[in-house]
Parts: sequence; structure tokens; C-alpha cells
Amino acid sequence: MDWTAAARRVLARCDALAAHSESGEGLTRTFLSEPMRAVHAELRGWLAAAGCAVRLDGVGNLVGRYAGAEPDAPVLVIGSHLDTVRNAGRYDGALGVLLGLAALEALGGRRWPFAVDLVGFSEEEGVRFLVPFIGSRGYLGELDDGMLELADAEGMSVREAIRAFGLEYGPGSAPENAIGFLEVHIEQGPVLEQLGKPLGVVTAIQGSSRAEVSFAGRAGHAGTTPMALRKDAFMAAAEWALAVEALARSALGLVATVGRAQVEPGAANVIPGAAALSLDVRHADDAQRLQAVAALRARAGAVAAARGLSFEWSVVLDQRAVPMDAGLQELLLEAAPEGTPSLPSGAGHDAMILAEAMPAAMLFVRSPGGLSHHPDEDVLEEDVAAALGTLARALELLAARHA
Amino acid sequence: MDWTAAARRVLARCDALAAHSESGEGLTRTFLSEPMRAVHAELRGWLAAAGCAVRLDGVGNLVGRYAGAEPDAPVLVIGSHLDTVRNAGRYDGALGVLLGLAALEALGGRRWPFAVDLVGFSEEEGVRFLVPFIGSRGYLGELDDGMLELADAEGMSVREAIRAFGLEYGPGSAPENAIGFLEVHIEQGPVLEQLGKPLGVVTAIQGSSRAEVSFAGRAGHAGTTPMALRKDAFMAAAEWALAVEALARSALGLVATVGRAQVEPGAANVIPGAAALSLDVRHADDAQRLQAVAALRARAGAVAAARGLSFEWSVVLDQRAVPMDAGLQELLLEAAPEGTPSLPSGAGHDAMILAEAMPAAMLFVRSPGGLSHHPDEDVLEEDVAAALGTLARALELLAARHA
Repeated sequence: MDWTAAARRVLARCDALAAHSESGEGLTRTFLSEPMRAVHAELRGWLAAAGCAVRLDGVGNLVGRYAGAEPDAPVLVIGSHLDTVRNAGRYDGALGVLLGLAALEALGGRRWPFAVDLVGFSEEEGVRFLVPFIGSRGYLGELDDGMLELADAEGMSVREAIRAFGLEYGPGSAPENAIGFLEVHIEQGPVLEQLGKPLGVVTAIQGSSRAEVSFAGRAGHAGTTPMALRKDAFMAAAEWALAVEALARSALGLVATVGRAQVEPGAANVIPGAAALSLDVRHADDAQRLQAVAALRARAGAVAAARGLSFEWSVVLDQRAVPMDAGLQELLLEAAPEGTPSLPSGAGHDAMILAEAMPAAMLFVRSPGGLSHHPDEDVLEEDVAAALGTLARALELLAARHA
Repeated sequence: MDWTAAARRVLARCDALAAHSESGEGLTRTFLSEPMRAVHAELRGWLAAAGCAVRLDGVGNLVGRYAGAEPDAPVLVIGSHLDTVRNAGRYDGALGVLLGLAALEALGGRRWPFAVDLVGFSEEEGVRFLVPFIGSRGYLGELDDGMLELADAEGMSVREAIRAFGLEYGPGSAPENAIGFLEVHIEQGPVLEQLGKPLGVVTAIQGSSRAEVSFAGRAGHAGTTPMALRKDAFMAAAEWALAVEALARSALGLVATVGRAQVEPGAANVIPGAAALSLDVRHADDAQRLQAVAALRARAGAVAAARGLSFEWSVVLDQRAVPMDAGLQELLLEAAPEGTPSLPSGAGHDAMILAEAMPAAMLFVRSPGGLSHHPDEDVLEEDVAAALGTLARALELLAARHA
């Protein structure tokens, strides 16, 4: 089957939704912002035309129910998120929702042994309240008072934002009899492009550690302090940063990043007395990740000791890996083109949250240049067609299993 | 002779002058600020009591003339600066002026074959107009229109500041028949302390180079970008910074400092796409300094090339070394305690400017902890006594030569 025309429509709809932005220039659409209403209005029309019954749940997730062959049929959930980062691209989130819609449209009214809930999650990026996954957590009924009382930059709480949007937070809207969750998402990395593959099946959402390390030496005059008498905190930081890189390069599947570096006092003619660095370590295997973090902490201590400096280490995040469901991974691999690779996801996704409640799996679409969270974020039309064909075949295979 | 009592008085006067500050807490006294008037008033009294005729020159330098035995005697200039950095210590500058005064007081009215001009320079630190040495340049009559039109944070020019203080800029006030300039100053570094010596004779004011180097790679998602596909600008920066340290450690008398490091975009979960570093290189020998800078520039290029990054290099400063006068160095060494070492100055001083017009030399006083530009900046009483004894003996030796 040729999915080109349908893929084109998906891309045109991505463009259409990208027009609804909080910012005059560029695309920014955060949790329960006004432009989200316009997105919902467009989607409601498309979902209704595809034969779905549409509702907005208590946390602003738009759910289109495509009924199954029987009234009490179990429910397959398909979806991704409708919010964006600031100055975003058009595909991160929206592509997955619109590919799900296109898969339903391709049925031409046929019914399966399961219903489909197509969900556009209201919040995944963590922009407005600095905490991500409010949409999918709310979908599972997991927002506690602590989450609901988070405040945005204007001091409005999550609860107030929900009320201001005309909603009332209640128990989650995830179906009791869910058979699984499928999410299509752009890769946001360069791996598929490097492999020359349009699609990939996600094995796990990598676990991630964050830490802050700071070295304290002694500030001094850049002209009057001989090299042998220095305690230069930035040189310790540089030595440790290279050790981070070397360790990550030597360990398969490990990524480690020093994204932030601050030097005090930070003047060209003053030897740095203090340097603070961030560390981000990710791996699909939690034991390997924690082992790497421990090794890097020990290394920071050794670098500091060798230079007569002190160091401090604080753990900011320790998030376990979330494996994707083995059965649904197999289903996607069977539905996907021959030779479709499996790969871990280095970023968090709604599927990570949904996996707590039901079998979950993800299909990645190649990201040209590995680019995302940027206006130039892109997808190839033929990759979108391949993703749509794979999703449609996966649904057929699933239907056959449930027949 | 026991200089202890005189040294104590010098230290008490340093404390007294430190009370005149622009800031409520701590000591800050910039060019032609109101507290400088109070310092002048105190100094005028002490200078007059010591037998000096006092005048304020056209750029706010306070000059006390201690007449020689003959009216047309040549003039020895002794001095240092009276301005300070922000949140300064009490000795950087003021100590040299007050030691000169104490040396005159020790004469008890005796006259020499030369007059002495004791100068408290009005500006050395470059705080108010971001350009240093306004006092000593003005003393030599070297302030051109460009300098006079520099503006401070309030938009007031040097020329206007001079008028507002009640002065009029004119030709310099340095004597035509100067035989030399002697400056006593705290070392502001740890070398004398490390050597266990109270004093040191300065061989040269080191030349200094400043450059900005920036590496440009590719920002990327810390989770989704495998190590092998990264172009991490901070890792290039770290590698180069360690090369700076290694080169400086391997070359005698060379100091090189990376005092500033800025990483873009600077988020813990984003691979740095750009990193900018400052470089400060100093050496008493200009050829060795320039050779080091060239080697470090080449190294930046090699690091960038090996990592597939680009780099930019811009020269910010290229200031030649200023050797101190050999004859006056010998004089100070003869006057100083047995075993007094010679050492280069890593910082700039008024003597560097005065050396353009007359033989100039400097005597350094040990800085406990190498500390300066800090409220805890200190000197030892016995070191001040040794400095005063040395200065007094140097004057006697010089008098014998001119007899």
C-alpha cells in the first residue's frame, strides 16, 4: 500500500497545528495555553470525521474514542503530546498524534476487536511548571496535591490553570481494560540517520542521573602566582570533564554530558578559585549507569586530591530506566520494514509514564541532522509514510491476535 | 638601626588612610573620588611636617617636594598610588607612599645632593575609567584627548572629573632633571613567602598577552546523541585548557591562565555547542611570551581540527615587558638584606609607566598568602621595617654616589 498521500496530509496537519502558538514568531505552546484550545478545535473536527467520539479529560488531554467491534471491547491507547518547548519544531509530539489519527482514517470505518483511544496529551515538556509529564500523569490519575500546587512563572498553580481552562481535575481517564499504549515520536537524535534507517523500535527509555560537582581551589592573581603555587579550580574541572568523556566513550550505550560550567570569579586575569559543572549520565541499564556515576564521583575526588583542592558532589536526579514491553516491541518489529533497528531512547516520553499502567512501546522516526527542540526540526515524507504503514500494519497484526 | 617603631607608624597610617572609602563597608577609593580629598588632607599634614612643599598636579597626583642641598639639585622620585580596587586591602599602593614618607622623616631634616619628590599617584587600578595608570601617565603629561574623553559609569569624562575635582589638566608634573623612580609595593603574589624572604627586587614588569578563544561545535540532546556523534565544544575547551597549563608548567618563568569559561547553551541536558575561554600569558621575556601564545593558538587549532570543530582566536592585549633599570636594581640589592632575591613582577605598576621617562626600579614586600585585592590583604610588621631600612639605605647609597 502507498502511504504517501496520507503522509502528506499528516505533514500538512503538523503545519496547521504549528500555527497555534503563544509567541508571535516561532512555535511555543505550553500546558493549557490559549493556542491549545485552537489545536483542540482542529483535532476535534478531524477526529469526529474519522468516526471518533471526542472528550477532554480533567487535565486537558484530548481523547478520541474509536469504538471497537463490541461495546465492551478492550482499548488500545495511541498517542503523544500536543504541547511544545519554547521556539519548538512542528513534529515533537504532534507527529505521533496525527499519525495515530491517520491510522484510524485508513480503516475507512472498519472496526477491530479492540477500541482505540487516540490521546493528545496536554503536557509533556515541563515548560510551564518545570515538571514534565503532567498530561500523562493526569491521564493515569496520578497527580497528587504536591503536583497540583506547583506554580508557574505567574504564580498560578496547576489546579488553578486546570480550572481557568474550564476543567476540573478528577480521577484519570485511562481505560480500565487497556491492552497497551503505542507512541510514534521523532527520534530527536542522530542514530537512525547514521544507520540510514527511517524507523526504529525503542527498547527502553534510558535511566538518567544528574549531579552537580564543584571544585574549590584558591583564586589568585594571574600575573603574580607561579604555576607551581596555583590551586586552579578550572583546571581540575577540565581534567575531570575529559575523564567524563573518556569513560562514556569506552562504555557501550553510555552517554555522559557536562552541559554547564561556571567559573568563579570569572575574570581573565584571576586564577579560578571555584568551578561548578553539571553531569548528565544515561544508560538503558541502571546498574551500568550507577556504576559510571560512582566512577566519575571517585574520579572527581582523585582529581581534587591530586591538585590539593576540595570538591563537592550533589545528586540532582536518579531516574530508573523504563523498558518497553517486549510483546509490543516484537509487534512493531514485525510490522516495520525489514531491518528496522532497535535502540534505546535517551529522552523521556509519555510512554515512560504509561508503562506504569499498561504494556507500552514506541516507534521512532528518523530526525534529519538529529535536530529537535528547534524551529528547523524536520522529518522526511517517506519516513512518515513508513511510520504510518508500520503503525497500520501493527494494528492489523494486533487485531488478528485479538480476533 | 631599628626600624620597628617607624614601621608601626607606617602601618597605623595605612589603617588611617583606609578609613577614607566610597563604600560604607570595605575599602574602595577610585580616581578623584571624594574620599581621595580626605587622603590628600591627611598626607599634606604628614608631608609638611616632614619638611616637604606639597602641591596637587593637574591630574590629582599629590607631590611632596623634599628639597635637596642645592636649589637646582636633580630630583629622585619616590611613590606609588593612592587609589584602590573595589573592596580592597589597605596596602596595595598606600604602603609605598607611606614608606617613602617614613624614609624622608628618618632624615631628621638632613639634605641630600638630590631633591625627593614623593608622589601619591591618583590612579593606577583602572577601576573608574576601566583604563589603568591615569595618574602616572598624567604625571608624565601623556594623557591625550582619547584618554581625557574616556567616560566613567555615570558618563563623566576624565577631563570633566579633573575639573569637578577643582583641577585643570596641563603638561605633566614630572621633574625635567629626574635621576630615577623608586617604588615599594606589596608583591601581590606568593613567591617571596615561598622563598621565606621579606623583600625582593623587581627585574622587570612582565609582558602580557590576552586572547579570547572560542570553539564552535554542535549543540545536541544529552540523552539522544551517542558519544561518537558529538561535537562537544566544552570538551575541546577542556582539552585546550589543560594544554595551556601543561605548557606554562614546562616553561620557566611563564604563567598562563584561563580565568573565564563560558559554555553555550549552558543547560545540564544539552551538549555544549560553543565554549569561549580567556587566555592570559605573561613572561619577563617578550619573545618567550609570544612564542607561548603562538604555540597555544596552534594547539587550539589542532584540538578543534581533531574534533571536527571550528575555533576563533582574537588577540585582546599584547603588552611588552618593561625591564627595570639595572643600576637602580643593583642599588636596591646592595641596600637590601643579604640574600634578597630578584624576581619579575607579574602585575603592572606605576614604575612601568615612569620607566618610559627615567630609570625606574621596584622593591617588593612579601604578601602573606600571596593575597591582594582583598580585605584580608596583609603585610608583616618586620617586613615593613626591612623595606623601610632598605629604602633608607638605598637613599644613603645614592646620596654617596651623587656627592
